[in-house]
Formats: sequence, C-alpha cells, structure tokens
Amino acid sequence: MVVDIDPERFEKSFETYSAIGATDDDGLNRLTLTDADREVRETFQADLEALGLDVRVDRIGNMFARREGTDPDAAPVLIGSHLDSQPYGGRYDGQLGVLCALETLRAFEDAGIETDRPVEIVNWTNEEGSRFEHAMLGSAVWAGITDLSEALELTDSEGKTVREELERIGYDGDEPCAAGDVHSYLELHIEQGPYLEQRDLSVGVVEGTYGMAWLEATVTGEADHAGPTPMHRRSDAMAAAADAANGVHELPNRLSADAVATVGRMDVSPGSVNVIPNEVTFTVDVRSYDDDVVAEAVSKTESEIAAACDRWDTEFELEELWRIPHTEFSETVRDASRAGVEAADVSYQEMIGGAGHDANYVNRVTDSGMLFVPSVDGKTHTEAEFTEWEDAVAGAKAYAATVEELATE
Amino acid sequence: MVVDIDPERFEKSFETYSAIGATDDDGLNRLTLTDADREVRETFQADLEALGLDVRVDRIGNMFARREGTDPDAAPVLIGSHLDSQPYGGRYDGQLGVLCALETLRAFEDAGIETDRPVEIVNWTNEEGSRFEHAMLGSAVWAGITDLSEALELTDSEGKTVREELERIGYDGDEPCAAGDVHSYLELHIEQGPYLEQRDLSVGVVEGTYGMAWLEATVTGEADHAGPTPMHRRSDAMAAAADAANGVHELPNRLSADAVATVGRMDVSPGSVNVIPNEVTFTVDVRSYDDDVVAEAVSKTESEIAAACDRWDTEFELEELWRIPHTEFSETVRDASRAGVEAADVSYQEMIGGAGHDANYVNRVTDSGMLFVPSVDGKTHTEAEFTEWEDAVAGAKAYAATVEELATE
Repeated sequence: MVVDIDPERFEKSFETYSAIGATDDDGLNRLTLTDADREVRETFQADLEALGLDVRVDRIGNMFARREGTDPDAAPVLIGSHLDSQPYGGRYDGQLGVLCALETLRAFEDAGIETDRPVEIVNWTNEEGSRFEHAMLGSAVWAGITDLSEALELTDSEGKTVREELERIGYDGDEPCAAGDVHSYLELHIEQGPYLEQRDLSVGVVEGTYGMAWLEATVTGEADHAGPTPMHRRSDAMAAAADAANGVHELPNRLSADAVATVGRMDVSPGSVNVIPNEVTFTVDVRSYDDDVVAEAVSKTESEIAAACDRWDTEFELEELWRIPHTEFSETVRDASRAGVEAADVSYQEMIGGAGHDANYVNRVTDSGMLFVPSVDGKTHTEAEFTEWEDAVAGAKAYAATVEELATE
Repeated sequence: MVVDIDPERFEKSFETYSAIGATDDDGLNRLTLTDADREVRETFQADLEALGLDVRVDRIGNMFARREGTDPDAAPVLIGSHLDSQPYGGRYDGQLGVLCALETLRAFEDAGIETDRPVEIVNWTNEEGSRFEHAMLGSAVWAGITDLSEALELTDSEGKTVREELERIGYDGDEPCAAGDVHSYLELHIEQGPYLEQRDLSVGVVEGTYGMAWLEATVTGEADHAGPTPMHRRSDAMAAAADAANGVHELPNRLSADAVATVGRMDVSPGSVNVIPNEVTFTVDVRSYDDDVVAEAVSKTESEIAAACDRWDTEFELEELWRIPHTEFSETVRDASRAGVEAADVSYQEMIGGAGHDANYVNRVTDSGMLFVPSVDGKTHTEAEFTEWEDAVAGAKAYAATVEELATE
C-alpha cells in the first residue's frame, strides 16, 4: 500500500511559501540569508514544529528535523532540497523539493505510518550561489568538501559575510555541520530541461548528472584604428574570439549526442566601434555525462582557440575555472525510486540530469538519488519557470512512496 | 625656389606643444575644451600674434589667423589641422599638422615671401569627438554640415555642453562659423596606417579617403540553463553573434583588396558563465574607397547575420548608425601637392586614406587635399603613436612648398 499525500494541503503550502519573497511576475526573489529567506525558514520551522518535530540548525545554517523510526539503531533517510532562490528566479527550483519532503512527513503522520528507519528532512543553505558565489554551499560543507571557516567568510557583493548574515537572521546554529551516519538521501527537483516534457512523462528517475568544466579564455591582440589598418596587418582579438567561440559551439556535434557547450560571457576591450579590439575575455561551459567527453571538449576548446588565434595573429591564455566529474547516483536509491514510482503508478523514465544539485555533494558521503518533475519549455532561473501542478502532485506521490521504500528495512 | 623651413624651430615648437597635456608615457591627454586645450590654444595664439597676425575665433571655437597676400581680391589658402587629442592618445595626431602650418607661415616670414593669395591658418575644434561625441565638429559646422545650435548643445559624459565649455575656457568667439570664400585647403596628418612605412616613403599625397558604414546588430535568443538544454533546443544569441561576426570578418577577403571590417564592440546579456545568452549587441565598421563595396559589405553583413541567426534559431535587428561616401580630394590640390613635394625633393606616392579628417568636410565646400607622413607600425590613438622626426621634417618641407604652390596665382 502506498501512502496518500494530500494534494490540497500540498498546494496550499506551495502557495504560502511562494508568497514569501514573491515577485510581481509570479517568481521568487529570495536570495539566501536575506529577510525573505529568514521568513521562509521561520515558516518551515513552524510547520515542522506543528508536526511535533524538533528543528536543529547547523553551523552553516542547514536546517534538519527528524521523525523517529521503530529501529533505534537504524541510520536515517535524509530528504529535502533548498528554499533559497535565484534573483528573480522561479517558484519551483528547490522549494518544490522541500515541500514534497514536508508533505511526505505530513502524509506519514496522517496515515500513522511507522517507518523502520528515522526520516530526516533538510533545507540546505545557499544552493544557488548567486548571492555568495559558491553553489550548493550547505551540502558542500556538510559533505566535507568545503571548509566551514572558508564558507563562513564568503562575502556578497556588499562585503557582508555568510557568518554575519547567518547571525543577523538568527540561523547561526550550533550543531556541527557534518554528515554523520545517514542511510540514504533523496531529493526531488524540477528538471530544468525539456526531456520529460517532450516525452510526456511526470517523473524522471535520475541516473546521474553531467560532468562539467568551466574555462576562461583571454585573447590578446593589438588595438588599432579600424580604418587605415589593412586586414592582413591586424591582430584583432575580437576576430579571433568570434572564430574560436564559433568553433566551441560546433564542438558538441563532433563529440557526443549529450555534450553541450556554452559561451556565456564575453568582454571586449576597449569596446569602441572604430577601434580594433586588443583584448577579449570569454567563458566556456562544457558538459557531458561522459567525463572523457568533457576532457576532450576542454582539449578541443584549447585547440579551437589556438587555431583561431593563429589565423588572426593573436595570443591567448586559457584558465580552467572549475571541473567536476559526472555523478552516478546510488543503485540502492535508484532501485527504491523505480519501486516507489511504480507503486505510486506515475509515468516515468530513467534519465541523466544536466545541472548540479545538493544531491551531487551528498552522494559523495551516502547513497543518494533524485526524482525530476518536468519543466515547461525547460525554463528555469527565470520568473517564467513553470511545472504543471498535476506533475508536481504526481512527483510528490512518487517521492513519498520512494521515501517509504527507503525507510523500510 | 622652395621656401626653407627651420627644422630646429619646428622641433622646439613640437616639444613645447607636446608638454601641454602630456602623459607620463610621452602621449597627450588633451581632450577638446579642457584646461589643457585652453593652454595649447593660448600658446598657439601667442605664436601667431608674435608673427604680427590677428587671431579670430568663431562661434564653435575654431581659431583662424590670416597672413595677407599681394592680390587684394584673391581668396585665401586655408592650412592647418586640430590641436585636441584622444584620451591618452599620441603627440602627432592633429598637432603635427597645425605645427607644419605654423612653421610654413614662419618660414614665409623669414624668407620675406609675399604670396599672391592670403594664407590663413586654422585650428579646428573637437576633431576627435571623444569628449563630445561628434568627430570633426568644428569643420562640420564651418562647412554647413552640422547646425551650430545643435553643436553647442552637445554634452560630455558629465552633462557639460560645448557652449559652457567654450565660455569657460574663453574660446566662445563671435566670428560667424561659416566657410566664406576660400581658394583651397591643405592638411598634413599622420597616416595612422602602415602604407608609407612599408614602402619606406616620407610623404603620401592623399587621393581620397574611404567611404564607411557603422552598423549595430542586436541578436535575440532565449536565456536557458547551460546544462540541461540540449544544443538542438537552444536559441543561443551568443552562438549566433559569434557565427555572424566570424562571417563579417571574412567579408573583406570576398569583396575587395582595400575593404576592412571591424567588430569593435560586443555586449552579451545576461553574461553569466552557465546561462545561455538571450541578447548580444555588436557593432560593425566597414570601409572601402569604393562606395559600392561599402554598400555590398552592408548588405552582406545583413545576410551573414540572417544566416547565422537562422542556424542558431535566433532573431535580429540591424541598425545603420552612420554612412559616409568616400572622399575624392581636389585635382587642383593634388596637382599642387605633387609639384610641392617634388620641389621639396621628398620621396612620396599617391595613396588612399582609411580614416576621416577635417579635410573630408572642408572638401565639401572648397578644393581640399592632404599630405600624410608615416606612422611607425601604423599605431595611432595610443601613447605609442610615433613618427620618425626626419619624416616629420620632410613632411613640413613638402607642406610649405605645396602651400607656396597653392598661394601662387
């Protein structure tokens, strides 16, 4: 038998939480550790306390609450996501996962379900990384990937630290920020891509997520007058950069069906209509599920830039800003997810995710997995982000059933 | 017999003028209508008064002084250039032409030369257009191309008007700013390109200058997450813009040996490493001596952008910011120039110029021409701008001889 969630209660909570930090265009502007974040944390805390649960806050502000199981020796199943948003982002990214976890606990309580293992809910601090530039910060510290002291000293654009802002909003907890003994972790998230919508499915069981590399190229030429300098005498940094970027955008076709490449930023100097640019800096983001494809994309990016700089008589430097291998989620959690989704009778498929999530870091220390629900038009990080409510409900059902599965010995 | 210039006096003046608004790296930072511009104007005025000449200032601040000729009915030969500089520009651009004209008048005086026609020297206001964004402003108003009232209301980045700044530095003259009866105009300028240096010549007799067009393209796509959005689902404004810019840079090869194309500015929005850009704006500067080639370059720029936007599923708008036809300088002045340069026994060739000068506007109302001297490495609008002093002296000799030629009936 599968636990029944309450779609009305679930939707009411979604509306309540979505009003906190709401934008005029049905989005959310609820950056981490702002007043809006404090307000949503307080609402979340009150909802957990109403279930009779104690809320614990750790040193980086991650919030936890445990519903005990019947086996006093069992490690808990951890469930949740994040409540912070992008600047003028959507209402589904992160929040939907936390509310599915909350609805799961409420549904267990309603049905008087006693799980074998404890089930512990979590709200991770600063998943987005848009205010303090370290995405998935709370889970990174918790999983031992980032030092707590380094995390607390991160500053926003106004120079305020994570430490000061945690204190200010009253979420500088005293629990140690460390993984401890956890049985497994399950996170529901919007897909942020078009895969499920195109296939008319309600849920994706996530096999893993892409590996990725971020590069920054600086092309150096010589500034000259755009008139009297013949083409063959130019050292045009813009011509080389456009040529190189063009090559980078063609790379995925040559490498793999799942590879993607993005030039997201390009700064041109001096940036005057009649001056040949002497310096152009641009970023490259390459991703694939296959780490070898990412490595090849990095190497071919370098050779594309080198060839373009050679053609346009310019020089370049290439810096690797970040590289992470692909994540393969736990077989245990994927098995439980398939069983849960099937028990909930929801349409699904296994799939690969393109973005990073807290589950990627948590997977480094315990068996982890994710469920995706569809994103209309694949849109995300915008107020237009949208998920059909029937898909959200199907996702919540599948999620609750999977948690029940994981919490059973 | 050719008039003798005094190389020592010429060099001493060059050093004196170059000290006004000098930068630490041997350049000039003498933007129009600044205190440095006032100081160099006062120095110029004192030098002209020392020759016994009256200085007149017109409504836009252009400075004139006339050395009378023997024929009371003859129209004057106008000689000169501009004393303003680019921000952190070089010491040769403009200033060298004014000082060649000054040395010419001094040499005539020394040699007791009485020309048939009067010879009138000019320093044009705001040739550079970097402080008030209208290049060749003084000559444009003088030639009736730009309205005086419009010119006086132009503002700099701090909101100060040309009118206020002319008053502030005391060069708001009361002479009407209009061409009147002028026999011809001769301007010496640095080449700002590599043509003369490559051919080891001291002087270029300028046949004319390039026609040009400035375009601004705006490519619109859709912002999406750089991870989960497959390549074939993207509407990537950066990919389209790089593709289009690449096509634009290849255009000159397909159009004409003299054509040049420059993408000087590119702004990418939102400009984040992991977001597919939704809007990219870039400028295109295309030039050729053949107006048909410029027209074809404009049309092919549009088709390159259209094809790139089609390939990357994006839209675009293209605006023409400016278009000017090529300038063909006066046969009369070119004949006199060849005669003058040959009489001065200076190596030369006829050539085409790539940049715009006051002579372009003056040529609309009277027979005009230019002499170029070499720019080392073609560098200009930078403190590294340089002309070998022996070339400057050869240019001054050729210039004085040509003025003598033009002033003879």
